[in-house]
Amino acid sequence: MHFPFSVRWVGNADTGYLELLDQTLLPLEERILKIADASVAREAITSLRVRGAPAIGAAGAYALVLSARGITDSDQWHEKLTQQAVWLNDSRPTAVNLSWALNRLVQQDAKNPHLDLITRKENLLNEANRIVEEDREMCECMGKNGAALIGEGYGVLTHCNTGLLATAGEGTALSAMYYAHRLGVQFQVYADETRPLLQGSRLTTWELHRAGIDVTLICEGMAGMLMSQGKIQLIMVGADRIAQNGDTANKVGTYGLSILANFHKVPFFVVAPSSTFDHKLKDGSEIPIEQRKAEEVTTVFGQRIAPASVKVFNPAFDVTPGSLITGIVTEKGIIKPVSRESILNHWK
Amino acid sequence: MHFPFSVRWVGNADTGYLELLDQTLLPLEERILKIADASVAREAITSLRVRGAPAIGAAGAYALVLSARGITDSDQWHEKLTQQAVWLNDSRPTAVNLSWALNRLVQQDAKNPHLDLITRKENLLNEANRIVEEDREMCECMGKNGAALIGEGYGVLTHCNTGLLATAGEGTALSAMYYAHRLGVQFQVYADETRPLLQGSRLTTWELHRAGIDVTLICEGMAGMLMSQGKIQLIMVGADRIAQNGDTANKVGTYGLSILANFHKVPFFVVAPSSTFDHKLKDGSEIPIEQRKAEEVTTVFGQRIAPASVKVFNPAFDVTPGSLITGIVTEKGIIKPVSRESILNHWK
Repeated sequence: MHFPFSVRWVGNADTGYLELLDQTLLPLEERILKIADASVAREAITSLRVRGAPAIGAAGAYALVLSARGITDSDQWHEKLTQQAVWLNDSRPTAVNLSWALNRLVQQDAKNPHLDLITRKENLLNEANRIVEEDREMCECMGKNGAALIGEGYGVLTHCNTGLLATAGEGTALSAMYYAHRLGVQFQVYADETRPLLQGSRLTTWELHRAGIDVTLICEGMAGMLMSQGKIQLIMVGADRIAQNGDTANKVGTYGLSILANFHKVPFFVVAPSSTFDHKLKDGSEIPIEQRKAEEVTTVFGQRIAPASVKVFNPAFDVTPGSLITGIVTEKGIIKPVSRESILNHWK
Repeated sequence: MHFPFSVRWVGNADTGYLELLDQTLLPLEERILKIADASVAREAITSLRVRGAPAIGAAGAYALVLSARGITDSDQWHEKLTQQAVWLNDSRPTAVNLSWALNRLVQQDAKNPHLDLITRKENLLNEANRIVEEDREMCECMGKNGAALIGEGYGVLTHCNTGLLATAGEGTALSAMYYAHRLGVQFQVYADETRPLLQGSRLTTWELHRAGIDVTLICEGMAGMLMSQGKIQLIMVGADRIAQNGDTANKVGTYGLSILANFHKVPFFVVAPSSTFDHKLKDGSEIPIEQRKAEEVTTVFGQRIAPASVKVFNPAFDVTPGSLITGIVTEKGIIKPVSRESILNHWK
């Protein structure tokens, strides 16, 4: 695999390790973390060293492979593995891909209760590798399906980071841009810097610029002005969790963008794989929203930018109602219009 | 005058100096600049050491008092004074208060062409002091008029900084909050951090917190979510320039807020004194929009947060159409609804 990558495994289940590109240091430093300890992997997920729903899922799966090393009691093996999965899942409560990936490994393990532990550990790694491989294929399919929406000369606005760094493949929304770029379509990307953690300025501009895609950085407050000037023909964002009716949790700021898009009649598309759909949730009100630390807003790279004692509201995500979403691009096609029925039919 | 203040003059016209609180250092450091040189004053305006339309007007007026010291030729006095005013005005092209204040001094000077230079210099200072005194009174009146809009238990969202630090008095939008606070109204302020220059996190939270007003810091992308949760009952912002039809240039991000307010049916008020109305401009399309340096977006307090070579779109202001503004609070009352006719009638 070529650099950059967000997450990968090196070696076998017993002595191998997880490699993560520490995204909190980008774009200033490109540091690869080599992780052979589940606690370190969990901390990396909590601290957003790895981020993006599919990449978190992959990292979580590999973290469980590391957790499994510490379990030596074959009688209590599956019970302890399940406990470790719960512990890892608590590191990021909103991203459904994390619980999805962890459950997949736990359920795979439950199928073969009589195998020896060495084989079960290898099976866990194989399942984690399958998750990664499937993610790459899904990214490729989403890229192809989404690229069809990007017309010649378009201005495409995106939020947060949904690319190489957010998945095991080329991303969700950004995958469509990579695909269109390879097709030779000329277009311009506007990247929201995405406060407070600046995934747009730190990561999206970094990876698109590397790929030779024309990208311009803006602050969130400038998006409305760009739309009013007719510079945006399409908005493409990712998703962290999608409910039955299309209500979509994504990086905070997405909801506001959807309202601006609605006002200016700019098509607003979510790009997300099947694993992002949470078929248990009736609507967005059931999506838990993670509240994060004040320091993420009051400091930038350790530099304080607000009075130390100030109160802060810092939700990681917001929920965009399905009714404000023009369509959802998946690995299977495009759900449009977005409704409970169209989503059900899409996955039938 | 009590600290904090944004701008004041100490001493007489001949040997006195301008004092500015260097707002680029807040909230980390409270440094007062003592300025006796017009070039230094102009640089302070360009670099946003002093900012906020009325404070810029006051600083510009005092800068012209400093400029006048260098003019010794009584034949060419007025011509040279006018040249200095043009040079100072170029430091911030959008803020109408700057040209308004400079013109006022130049016109005042033109009334008495036969006075000696010492008297003319003192007259310039007197006129600058009158501008400051009038600004304080206007702030007081806007505060009183605006406070009537703030109900018990309200959540009030604001953008940028429009307070003590933006004017010679207690501000425009924030003046209403100071006034309501003194009346004993219980309310909560949500302050947009206001990227890229973070006037909200650095300045608004700093001054409201000092005054004992309950303030919570948010990033721009969180405003929509707060409104959807019913936490915002009122939005109050300042203005840099208002056209005949109510189209309003203000800190970039204001336009997007007005669309969010419209969508959520939250009243959206602009608070601005008479000097902000530019009666020459038919509508917002005639307002010049200052484009600022990429570094304001790609660095924070000197720390780089984006790839060095990235393209940036960085307009200082955007224009909110009068049709999206519920009302405009002035020192004279409230213009509501906002239209060419209501504005004309208000100032009749």
